[in-house]
Parts: sequence; structure tokens; C-alpha cells
Amino acid sequence: MIVVMNLGASVEDIQEVEEKITQFGYSVHRSTGKKRTILGAIGLPREEVKELLEGIPSVEKVVLVSSPYKLVSREFKKERTVFKVGDVEIGGDKIVLIAGPCAVERRSFLQAAEAVKKAGADILRGGAYKPRSSPYSFQGLEEEGLKIMAEARELTGLPLITEVLDQHSIEIVAKYVDIIQVGARNMQNFKLLKELGQLDKPVLLKRGMSATIEEWLMAAEYLLSSGNERVILCERGIRTFETYTRNTLDISAVPVAKELSHLPVFVDPSHGTGKWKWVPPMSLAAIAAGADGLLIEVHPFPEEALCDGSQSLVPQKFLQMIEPLKGVAQTVGRTL
Amino acid sequence: MIVVMNLGASVEDIQEVEEKITQFGYSVHRSTGKKRTILGAIGLPREEVKELLEGIPSVEKVVLVSSPYKLVSREFKKERTVFKVGDVEIGGDKIVLIAGPCAVERRSFLQAAEAVKKAGADILRGGAYKPRSSPYSFQGLEEEGLKIMAEARELTGLPLITEVLDQHSIEIVAKYVDIIQVGARNMQNFKLLKELGQLDKPVLLKRGMSATIEEWLMAAEYLLSSGNERVILCERGIRTFETYTRNTLDISAVPVAKELSHLPVFVDPSHGTGKWKWVPPMSLAAIAAGADGLLIEVHPFPEEALCDGSQSLVPQKFLQMIEPLKGVAQTVGRTL
Amino acid sequence: MIVVMNLGASVEDIQEVEEKITQFGYSVHRSTGKKRTILGAIGLPREEVKELLEGIPSVEKVVLVSSPYKLVSREFKKERTVFKVGDVEIGGDKIVLIAGPCAVERRSFLQAAEAVKKAGADILRGGAYKPRSSPYSFQGLEEEGLKIMAEARELTGLPLITEVLDQHSIEIVAKYVDIIQVGARNMQNFKLLKELGQLDKPVLLKRGMSATIEEWLMAAEYLLSSGNERVILCERGIRTFETYTRNTLDISAVPVAKELSHLPVFVDPSHGTGKWKWVPPMSLAAIAAGADGLLIEVHPFPEEALCDGSQSLVPQKFLQMIEPLKGVAQTVGRTL
Amino acid sequence: MIVVMNLGASVEDIQEVEEKITQFGYSVHRSTGKKRTILGAIGLPREEVKELLEGIPSVEKVVLVSSPYKLVSREFKKERTVFKVGDVEIGGDKIVLIAGPCAVERRSFLQAAEAVKKAGADILRGGAYKPRSSPYSFQGLEEEGLKIMAEARELTGLPLITEVLDQHSIEIVAKYVDIIQVGARNMQNFKLLKELGQLDKPVLLKRGMSATIEEWLMAAEYLLSSGNERVILCERGIRTFETYTRNTLDISAVPVAKELSHLPVFVDPSHGTGKWKWVPPMSLAAIAAGADGLLIEVHPFPEEALCDGSQSLVPQKFLQMIEPLKGVAQTVGRTL
Repeated sequence: MIVVMNLGASVEDIQEVEEKITQFGYSVHRSTGKKRTILGAIGLPREEVKELLEGIPSVEKVVLVSSPYKLVSREFKKERTVFKVGDVEIGGDKIVLIAGPCAVERRSFLQAAEAVKKAGADILRGGAYKPRSSPYSFQGLEEEGLKIMAEARELTGLPLITEVLDQHSIEIVAKYVDIIQVGARNMQNFKLLKELGQLDKPVLLKRGMSATIEEWLMAAEYLLSSGNERVILCERGIRTFETYTRNTLDISAVPVAKELSHLPVFVDPSHGTGKWKWVPPMSLAAIAAGADGLLIEVHPFPEEALCDGSQSLVPQKFLQMIEPLKGVAQTVGRTL
Repeated sequence: MIVVMNLGASVEDIQEVEEKITQFGYSVHRSTGKKRTILGAIGLPREEVKELLEGIPSVEKVVLVSSPYKLVSREFKKERTVFKVGDVEIGGDKIVLIAGPCAVERRSFLQAAEAVKKAGADILRGGAYKPRSSPYSFQGLEEEGLKIMAEARELTGLPLITEVLDQHSIEIVAKYVDIIQVGARNMQNFKLLKELGQLDKPVLLKRGMSATIEEWLMAAEYLLSSGNERVILCERGIRTFETYTRNTLDISAVPVAKELSHLPVFVDPSHGTGKWKWVPPMSLAAIAAGADGLLIEVHPFPEEALCDGSQSLVPQKFLQMIEPLKGVAQTVGRTL
Repeated sequence: MIVVMNLGASVEDIQEVEEKITQFGYSVHRSTGKKRTILGAIGLPREEVKELLEGIPSVEKVVLVSSPYKLVSREFKKERTVFKVGDVEIGGDKIVLIAGPCAVERRSFLQAAEAVKKAGADILRGGAYKPRSSPYSFQGLEEEGLKIMAEARELTGLPLITEVLDQHSIEIVAKYVDIIQVGARNMQNFKLLKELGQLDKPVLLKRGMSATIEEWLMAAEYLLSSGNERVILCERGIRTFETYTRNTLDISAVPVAKELSHLPVFVDPSHGTGKWKWVPPMSLAAIAAGADGLLIEVHPFPEEALCDGSQSLVPQKFLQMIEPLKGVAQTVGRTL
Repeated sequence: MIVVMNLGASVEDIQEVEEKITQFGYSVHRSTGKKRTILGAIGLPREEVKELLEGIPSVEKVVLVSSPYKLVSREFKKERTVFKVGDVEIGGDKIVLIAGPCAVERRSFLQAAEAVKKAGADILRGGAYKPRSSPYSFQGLEEEGLKIMAEARELTGLPLITEVLDQHSIEIVAKYVDIIQVGARNMQNFKLLKELGQLDKPVLLKRGMSATIEEWLMAAEYLLSSGNERVILCERGIRTFETYTRNTLDISAVPVAKELSHLPVFVDPSHGTGKWKWVPPMSLAAIAAGADGLLIEVHPFPEEALCDGSQSLVPQKFLQMIEPLKGVAQTVGRTL
């Protein structure tokens, strides 16, 4: 961290700040300019120290030079993270397709599972626990839904991913599925992250809808620092003033996150746009920008879906996307 | 809900949509214009039905006319909600001042408690469990902190409020404090809300940093629909492009939320601005706009605070605010 | 427009609103439900009428059903707009590459022009008048810069595009260049748009940094309704809370704008991201999502650029992008 | 500016950067830490130099320490700016009320003028040239409107303020009115600002709807650096994700702008909220937070207004605001 002192800071002011910095376990490097003194605080930057120092009247501002995360960073680990879920390699050269309905219902789910398998999906998604802004909305079939998912895995051989909403259900969800998803609303549910960090299951971490890329990586740091290194980052759209799309899918977060971190980066164009018709172009864009995988809602009868029907592709439209996706993947040196 | 059909919708299309609406338990009113047909779906609007209907190709758009929340609305309950915590009346004519340090540490907390009591605070705040974006930041003293808080209540007689981060700690937190706070990051932690809805303790619900006012009220609806009617809404700043302030404190949310809902509305100018020097003017602004109370960080030695030091007032500055607050309160027909 | 009356609206209230609607030249269709009356106002929606009606106490809300623009819409003109600038076809199957330095300086500009020509650019860009947030920043060479641009056209045969900042300089700019650019800050400079609408030159209209897609199309409507049909829409990033990238490039605006309008849609990944290293992946993403062209900053010595050096590609990096761009273009059925 | 070099920067890299800094007219101060070298560039920070330096691979980041504006800053001029328009003192202890209709029409304008005069307004506002997002919306009566405004001044003695949309109409507008308003959409119309800077009339500069406070002050710097020191800053709401209010009125911008600058700061709660009923509470909040004046839409028959009817107060509601405004003004040491 760099601590910029005020123009009027006295020698005593400067010494006082240096002492504080030292108390927090940093070593200090003082640089005295003609007008202004600048202090370097050497060590991993910490938000509470930054805030504290900024509260001192003789301090103008505190600048973070190195990033506040460590284990997720490229500086810590140069080579990209690659791991396997069943036979599926995540983070490797082959683009990974996760597909399936939003909420799990028996009839549609098994049909959807077979359809996405046939079209070429690698992993099957489905929601057994649904975070809904209204208490009166359908909240998911819970364990019953997990059982249907397990049946679908039996049927298709595809590994499963589902969202977990709270610590209570981690155990049961982990019993049934292969990857655990943390939704955008829970990206900063730090207690949940810590417990998932101790679990022996890969975690897909969605970016919060108002989270900066740095905060997203910090949330991933909770998982890695608790012991779980099999983490997938997933961009799913941020909240902006634009209302035509449900969220603004931040495609530029893909190259940025891949530069800052060694973790695989996926994109969810279904939530990102909110309309099935924009899923194919945004899927192509995501792969073109370097994404390692996609998370796509596919439903055989979207008009009967218990949630998010408007953003679900029918299996045939999903199938039609595969060829162009292959073309783009090949162009950027990947396979699909 | 109003379902606007496409210009080209056929009679069959319209009948199909009417059937769907009926299946979801709404009654339908059809209005046939020269060019366009509009269907009224009579009943409480639900997001999943809106989305589903919007996924049908012959539907142009679906408009929510009535609000998707019920129990929190003014339409449901005209008179404002007033309740007591110890001797303190919340939501009444008297403005309520909640004050105290961000994180609880023994020495500073007891001093702060006495100081804010002396200055006129009604309720004592303190963080025993801290949500921190970095896993390497101080996360709070946990139960040890709760005990210190209880000591401070003993000392001052002030009721206590603290934040709860997850379901696991609800029980222990409820044992020690009088009001439970749900932080901005947990505003849509629906499992947590449901459990708090069943608790016999008032809940202060902070607005999420990218939550619309409607989503905030929907989150409160989770609490009320689970049985807890003693809910305080608390505006604490939303995330915008402006970086000079930590967040953008949305003062207009106060009159809006008070018009839409009967619940008391508080404001947290400390988090909202991120700098202690802007806390006094924004506190005055909040009361001028109709807020029922304030949540203010006060710390006797902010430069030693383990978090958020830069936004904490020293007790003397807090004391200096009281007179002008009284003046504004009186002007808008309140007391303090 | 659909006018939703309040639950408590009386017969007189409804008649009063119907009269107002009629006075504004709309025909009215009344639909009386059991609880609520809804009025359809048939005609092109106008913001001032919407606002006025919403100011009437008996009106709950006014909903725009059809879009407020006409000439730019797909409903008005189904086939996409294609036109020529010199030999370059805009809006056709071939992707158009516009490239060049941010600001025009003699030495670098002529070199850049030759380099981008060689790499395959179709049109040459350069800034002679620069909008700068500081009055103390370099504001462009003005006519001197235009002359250098004209020299570069002589040298390379490439048509020219440059930004115009105000009405005074339209005439002189139009004398030298082939396409006139309206920058993001001027997207709602309506007087400028009206004058450019009367000009016999194509206009590239950048999206304002906080403009919705609808407002962007409305700004284009100013150009078309004043008589100029040769308009290019250009997405260049919107302002959000994210600070890692200079702006958030809204790639989803490409398929949305192309669905709503027949006008060609370009993307500027240089301003959109603010860093040259993210220009290649975002260029690929833009084409994958359906963009008709790109606007890219290329500078032979970016470290000497008088503005935006950090987002300029060196010609060699620009050249390296061409092959992958061709691959993606081909995949989506385009050429380059 | 502080230039933070990369961890791996070589001695040659550092020398190269130092040379560049010197070429741009700064003096350099080098500080060599154990791991990292930091260069101080002493002089007024300039965006183009920051960008250029950030484009050099051996530079990690460039931090602005001092603000990029000068003449508008408190550092340049400690005492607050106070000036007179007619008999009205702007920026003094007395809060200034500007009121009147959005658009000028003869009948309503003269009535409104008399009503606001009677209620206690100090300055009369009205729009003769209206910036409208649709080309089909009413664009103002232009000179005819200015003449009506002048008549109203005759009638009431109140000085006039109106918005100017482009350079062409500066002369005619300046002929009729006493203060010239620059609207939010034109905040970065730098050519317009430069011309207004040379005019002998006070200018009220609205904050752009996606402008940071720093950009707003930079825009004011254009006016001051061109010679006009009689500038009023006016907060009018920023664009956020919230849709319930038309914009999010950033009340915290008041104390921030007043700390950074010596210029008077006004607030426009009518555009800021978009609904007349929220104008009174937000007006009180603005004054409580330290605003020097208010800009309020008042219209005798809002349901006939040619624009923004929904946000206009009727004169009686305006009158009712005056007493509470006086109370708040007095509390914060001002008069009204």
C-alpha cells in the first residue's frame, strides 16, 4: 500500500502514521519529496488497515498497489487451473458446456437431460433450491429435486451442478451433485463460502450483480484460503441502468479475470440477457473473448417452466448453437 | 398484471394465453382494441408467471400494475408500524438514534457505549460478526464480542443491535441482543430471512447495495410472511459509478419507502458516505426527508478501530450533531 | 400507450383522462375491468404526454407499448440499411474495419494510415477536435489536423472519419472527411444532431455513456427525421460501478440494437475497455455477437500519443487480430 | 501524480519513464524501495499524461494525488464565492429559491411567475429551448418564450434563468435572461462551456447524469478558465439502476462539492425525483445537507404542462414548503 501524506503533514504526523503502519505488521519505506511525503507499507494490503489510515487527518489517501487477493492470483500461480469432474476437464483447451432447466420438475427435467446430452452438453444443470425475490414464488423441489437430478445422471452419465442457498443444505446437496453453484446473491455470503471451502467438491462461483471483478476474486479467495482449489468463476451479468436486457453481461470480465487469475472463467448468457433469443450471440461472444465454458438454460417446454421461462432455449435452438460455437472455439485455439 | 398481446396475435394465440393465466389461478379480463388485445390477469403478481408469459411469442410484454408485495404495503396496512424495544419506541414521532462502533473490542466498546449514551443515543450498535470482503480481514470477536455488548447494556441500560451473518449464529446472537441486523450483502439471503421471520426479535433490514426499493420491500415481505412484523428498513447507500463517496446514499428512498410501506425507515449515513465528516450533513438530510431513525458509527479512537475507522465519528462530534438534529426533527414535526 | 387508472378512479376521473388523451391527438379505447379501468391511447407514444398523464392523481401509471421511435425501427423498415462510403459498403455482409490513432499528429498519422491500410483497414479514423474533460488537455490540431487526414487519404485511398464537436465546425469537417462521428458526450446534443441530419454525409453515432438503448435509437431518430438515413450506431461502453475497465462494453447491445433497428451497428472496443490488450478479445466478441464493424485505435508509437495512448494497439498487434477476426466472421456468415 | 513501477522494472525502464515525465514538463522525484520504485511527477495532473504513462509496460499504475482542476478548488480559493444577480445574493447565507414552470407558455407562465413571486421565490425559471429525447416532442417556444419570460420579469421584478442548448442561441438567450443554465446533457459540451466562459453572465451548471463529482468540477473549470467566475453548480440526480425515482438525487454531492470547491451548490429536486410529491422532502434534505439554493418546478396547471408535468408542484404546495424550509435553514445557520 502507498500512503500519501497531506501537503501540510508535519514530521510528527508522519512518524505517527509510520508507527501505525508498523503496528499492523507492515514494514515502512519513507520517501520525502519536496512538497509531499509518501510512505510505502510493504505487505499484503488489507481493507481495514487502508480504512483506518485514511481516517487519520494527516493522510491524503491510501493506494493499493498489489491486489488484496493472493491464492487466486496469477502472480501466485502462473499456470491455469485445470481439474476434472467425472470425465469432464474444466479449464482445459476444450470448452465446457453446462446446460439444463432453471428449476427441476420431473417430466421436463429428464427430457431436457436427454436432449442436452444428445446436443453435446458436458454437464447437467438444474435448480432444486431456488432463490426468489418473492416469498410467494416457487422455491424449488428441494431434496425431491436432487433425486430427480440423480436419476437424470443415471440416465445420461452427465455430471450434475446445482445451486446451494445456505449452510444447512450443503451436506444434502453435496450428497447428490458433482459441482456446487454459489449464486450471485450469495457471492458475499462469507460463512457459506468458508464452509464450501472445506468441502471436497468443485464450486462454481457466480459474480454478484453489483460486485467488482476484484470483489469477485476476493470471494473466490475465501474458497481457496479455506482449502478448496477447484473453483470456477462465472460471469452472469451486472446491474446497470439499462433495462432492455435483464442484466448487462460483462463480457470484458472474461479476459480481465483470466489475466488476473488462474481460475477457469465461465459465462451464463441466459441470466445475463434474460431472453433466450440473445443467448446464442452472447454465447459466441463469450467464447470469442476467451471463456472456458458456458452455463445455459435449456428447457423442453419453456412456456411451462416454473421460473425463468423467458430465458430458456428449447433443445433444438441449443443444438443449432453447437456448430457456430465450434467454429468460434477453433478460431481462438480451443475445441468444443 | 396486464398482458399486452402482439399486434399480430391470432384468436388462438389469445385463447392459449388466457388458459395459461387461468391455470396459474388468476381470473382474466379481455379487452379487444382495434389493433391490439390486452388481457388483465387479476390476482397478486408473481415474477415466475410474468417471466413465463413473456416467454410466449404472441405476448409483447407483461406489466405489473399492483406491487408484488402485500404485507409490507400501505394498501394492506394504512397506519404506520410502531413497536417498542425495551423503553424505546421505534417508528413513533420520536427519532431513534442507534450509535456505536463498527466492530466490538472491549476497551473501546465500553467507552463508546457510555459516550453515546451520554450524548443521547437510544440504542447501542456493535459488530460481533463482521462481513469482510477479504478472508484475511478481522472477522469479529464473535461470542466474546456479544458478551462485551451485554456488559455495555448492563452499564448503560441501552438496548443492543448487532448483525447476524448466517443461520448458525441466529440463536446465539438472539440470546444476547435486542434487535438483529441483516446486512446489505445478506438482504437476499432468503433462508436467513425466513428463519428470522420466525424469531421473536425485531429485525433491521439493510437495503442491498444494488437492490431496487421494490426488491428491498420484497425481502421485508419474507420476514413478515414468516410471522415477524417488527421490521425496520434501513437505507445505507447504493452502488453507483461515483467513487468519491463509498456508496451513494439514496435519501429519496426514505420518502418513497415510507409511502409504499408502513414500516419504519432508518438511514445509515456512515456506510452510506464512508467518511465521518459527511455523516452530520447526511444525518440532517435523512431526518429532513422523513427518516424515523439513524444508525451511526461512533468510536472513541477511530484511528484504532479494527474496521471502518474512516467513517466513525468521535463521541464529541456525535454530541455536536444532536442540537441541529433536534432542530430539523422539530421542523418536520418530530422530536428527538 | 396504456393508461392504467387507479383502483379508486371515478367515472368522472376516467372521462377527464379520456378527454386529455383525445386533446393530444390520440384515439382512446376504454376497457372496464371489475376493479380497474384501463385506457388505450392509440398513436405514436410521446414522452411529454406520458409525463403529463402520470401527473394526474387518478392515473396509476402509463405504459409505453410501442417504441417511441419510428424511422429507425425494424417495424418501419424490415430490410437492413446498407450504404456505400467510397468503395466501402457499410452494413453489408462484409465486416468493416475503421482504424487509426486517437488524435492526429503529422508524423504518426501518416505512418499509422499506411500501416492500417496494409493490415486491411477499410476506413481511416483520426481526431482533429478532441473532447477532453480537462480544459488543460490537448484539444486537437483542428483544421491543421483535417489537412493531415486528407493527405493520408491521398496516400492510402482510405475514406476518412472524424468527430465533430459542435455546429460551428460541421462545415469545415464535412469539407475534409467522408463520415462524421458524434461522440458519446454529444449523443443528446440535439441541435447538433438536427444539423447533421440535414447534411449529405453519413454519421456514426456513439452511444452515450449512460444512455439506454432506447435513448440511443431516439438520438438516431433525430438524424433520420431530419433527412439523413446513412447512420451507423456505435456501442462504446457504458458507465457502471466497475473500475477495472474504463467503461463496461455492452456487447449485448449489438444483437438488441440490430433486432430493434435496421441500422448498422459497430463496436469501439478501444474506448470500451481502455486498454489495448483487451481490444483483440473484445473485437472478436463483438463480431461473434453480430456487429457490422469495428472502430479501433491504432497508433505506431502509443507511448507518444497525445491522448488515449493506453488503449491504442500498435499496427503489428492490429495485424495479428485480422486472421482470428476472419475466422469468427466466417463462422457467423460474414466476410472480412 | 505518482507513477508506480512494476515489480520487475529495470533501471533502464525507470530512466525511460523519468524522461517521458520530464518531457511533459513535470519534475520527477524518484523513490527506490526494496522491491518497487515509485516516481513522483510534480505538477498539475493531466489525463493524457496519465493515460500515456499507463500505456508503458513497465508502469503498474498512475495515481492522481492532487485534483486535476485548479480554479474551482478550495485550495486555489479558500473563501466561498458569493455574487449578485440583480438584488439576489448567490452563495451567501440566504438560501436562494429558483422556481417556475418547465416549459414556457404564455398563460401559465405569467400566472406561475406571480405565484412563485408571492410564495417567496428569488429567481424565475422557465424553458424556452427544451432538450427532448424524442424529435417529435415539444421543443420549446424559443425566442417567443424568451419574450414571455422578459414580460414576467417586468411583472414580478424577478431575475430570469433559462437553459441554452447550443452556441448559436447563446447571444439571443443572453439578451433576455440573467442567468444561463447548462443542462445535464450538455455538461460536457466543451465548446459551449468555453463560449459561456467568455460571457458576462452567471452560469448554472447542472451535473451530468453519469458524471462523477470530479468531472462536474472539471466542466466548471472550463468556465472559470475561460474567464467566468460566476458559476453555480447544480446537482440534479444521477442515473442508477433504481427506476422508482426518475434519477437518484445524490444529496451527498452537496457537502462533497462544497468541500472541494468554493462555488455555490444548488439542488434540483424536481428532475432528481421526477415526482412532485417527493420534491418537498428532498428540498428539505438538500438544505439540511448544506445546499445554497434550490431549483424547483412550479406550474399552476401541471396537467396541462407541455413537459415534465408529473414533477411540477402547484403554487400552493410550493408555498407550503416555505415554512419548513425556513426551519431547516435556520437550524443549519442560514436564512431563507
